[in-house]
Amino acid sequence: MRELDLDEIEALAVGAWVLGTGGGGSPYLGLLNMRRLYAEGHRVSLMPPEDLADDDLVAVVSNMGAPLVGQERLTDSRNIARAVTLMEEYLGRPFRAIMSVEIGGNNGIQPLMAAAHLGKPVVDADAMGRAYPEAQMTSFAVADLKPWPLSLVDPRGVEGIVAKVPSWKWMERLSRKMCVEVGSIAATCKAPRTGAEVKAWGIPHTTTQAIALGQAIRRAQREHRDPIQAILDAEDGRLIFRGKVADISRRTTEGFLRGTARLDGLDAWRGSGFELAFQNEWAVGWLDGVARVMTPDLICVLDSVTGEAIGTETLRYGQRVTVVALRAPKVFLSPRGLEFVGPRAFGYDLDFVSVFDGAGPGGQTR
Amino acid sequence: MRELDLDEIEALAVGAWVLGTGGGGSPYLGLLNMRRLYAEGHRVSLMPPEDLADDDLVAVVSNMGAPLVGQERLTDSRNIARAVTLMEEYLGRPFRAIMSVEIGGNNGIQPLMAAAHLGKPVVDADAMGRAYPEAQMTSFAVADLKPWPLSLVDPRGVEGIVAKVPSWKWMERLSRKMCVEVGSIAATCKAPRTGAEVKAWGIPHTTTQAIALGQAIRRAQREHRDPIQAILDAEDGRLIFRGKVADISRRTTEGFLRGTARLDGLDAWRGSGFELAFQNEWAVGWLDGVARVMTPDLICVLDSVTGEAIGTETLRYGQRVTVVALRAPKVFLSPRGLEFVGPRAFGYDLDFVSVFDGAGPGGQTR
Repeated sequence: MRELDLDEIEALAVGAWVLGTGGGGSPYLGLLNMRRLYAEGHRVSLMPPEDLADDDLVAVVSNMGAPLVGQERLTDSRNIARAVTLMEEYLGRPFRAIMSVEIGGNNGIQPLMAAAHLGKPVVDADAMGRAYPEAQMTSFAVADLKPWPLSLVDPRGVEGIVAKVPSWKWMERLSRKMCVEVGSIAATCKAPRTGAEVKAWGIPHTTTQAIALGQAIRRAQREHRDPIQAILDAEDGRLIFRGKVADISRRTTEGFLRGTARLDGLDAWRGSGFELAFQNEWAVGWLDGVARVMTPDLICVLDSVTGEAIGTETLRYGQRVTVVALRAPKVFLSPRGLEFVGPRAFGYDLDFVSVFDGAGPGGQTR
Repeated sequence: MRELDLDEIEALAVGAWVLGTGGGGSPYLGLLNMRRLYAEGHRVSLMPPEDLADDDLVAVVSNMGAPLVGQERLTDSRNIARAVTLMEEYLGRPFRAIMSVEIGGNNGIQPLMAAAHLGKPVVDADAMGRAYPEAQMTSFAVADLKPWPLSLVDPRGVEGIVAKVPSWKWMERLSRKMCVEVGSIAATCKAPRTGAEVKAWGIPHTTTQAIALGQAIRRAQREHRDPIQAILDAEDGRLIFRGKVADISRRTTEGFLRGTARLDGLDAWRGSGFELAFQNEWAVGWLDGVARVMTPDLICVLDSVTGEAIGTETLRYGQRVTVVALRAPKVFLSPRGLEFVGPRAFGYDLDFVSVFDGAGPGGQTR
């Protein structure tokens, strides 16, 4: 266990935004919260999952909802802390530590905000290795761990508990409707996990991974090297497309941000077009009408100059962007894993082929 | 405190259906449950609210949702019992007794079903004196008592808690969305009440009232007297209209059953038309386009021959029906009470005038 310094949290914000694959919400407002909390003297420690005792209880937090709404209702660190204490009250038992359900986007920062208020460590792990839009899209669900209970907090003083559900899908359904009713954004504490469960099924060291990725990007920026190359090097990624945003269509619906974006090619891709579909996160990308990259591969849309990520809620007409793919955690690549997070789980009738497998998924037309 | 015999429960089913003013769900399926529970040897005791100690804790139950759905998902007494035990688990404290939030319809039977399973008495009181569609339409809300927590149970194993809300309206909003997601019907245990609160703000002796009303109807049926006259005599009611159902328009929407019904006059009303609007319960009735009766006056649509009530989910083309009005509990007649349950609370721009006030509400056109 070691204390995180603010510079690492600045890097975490940059790295988690790349791993967010368009979703998880912009980490900028979470970072502002952390700067203030650190200025007030709070400090957060990072705990390797290996240090958890088997029967330790871990809070699994996230801000749930449609990322676009996070630009209207600004991040307040007290909300996620309250979701954790509400769960402790419900369980009648304190948590040993706090982790994120998804390292991607602002949800990579959420456990730090709760931890700063509650004086608990943050576990260096998550359950997605990126960001996904739905409750059942986690390594814990793939492992068939207990999906309940969940606590949900809205800053107006609405607090709810999903006490029991027969499946992860029902957890998604009920909690999503509660989230939508309070404005399509809510602080949540998901089903608590034991230390043994986190060690067996958590995706380990993703906070460290996000910090290292952010540090690599910031170092390249400082040293005037190509930050996108730094990302590809740090994560063994693949360059997929470079272009200019020609069109973006977005709607906030059913508690999600859904839509499509169209890119016109630049450089080696001049004359080509690239289309992206998203549900909070980028789900599938088509190059000239042929599926080129798809979930669970991480699809990252980056500012072509700074290398910093662009979210599904912040992509705008005219931006120069580069699409890269990063490797998905192995747990999602099994047939069962793909049932939860493969393209068909998002409604796309595509067989998953990773860009990291030989020639990639080319050949499946729209 | 005294034990209810099955004959009283048969009468309760008839009387509660009249007091349901079209809603609360048909008590027939609840009655079938009670017949079986009594055949199995269960017995239920009725407890006058005066016998509650001030710090006794009372479970306030109801089946929530759109009445029409209750004809597809049949009443199972274990659901409402589970809503009560879920609340006990959440509070960490047992209930002394069980009462209904609304005496009307099947919700007049719900506390008996829970009581039979749990061996607790039923308090002879409710919080509406009839049935209303929404959570904030109770004497407890008019009294500004604490609106939370609420437990919600679906028989597939979905269990939720509304742990805190800033207002009764928020309780309605969040619990309604949860109810809709499980199919627009759910067993609920509303905010627990102390004995002191029930004695101060409950509407007393409404179970006894419903039993007596049902007995009067059944006696008139047996003795071949007019059961509708028996209702008017028992409750000091007003005869409003008699006719034949000419049209009914119903839709199950947002967790409610909404619609309108049109009656063609018979007997003294031949040549006249009567229109009823409903949201689970009958809300307003217009005679030849002029408001004739409106909530919170109880609007009861009865089978013209048997005197038994007809619900908003069971009214059908061609039925011969009689509309009568019964008196609303006083708590709803204050300006604050009318804010919660007057015609404007249902979206009708009408000043409430009771049919029991002089000439009644005539003169306000549609």
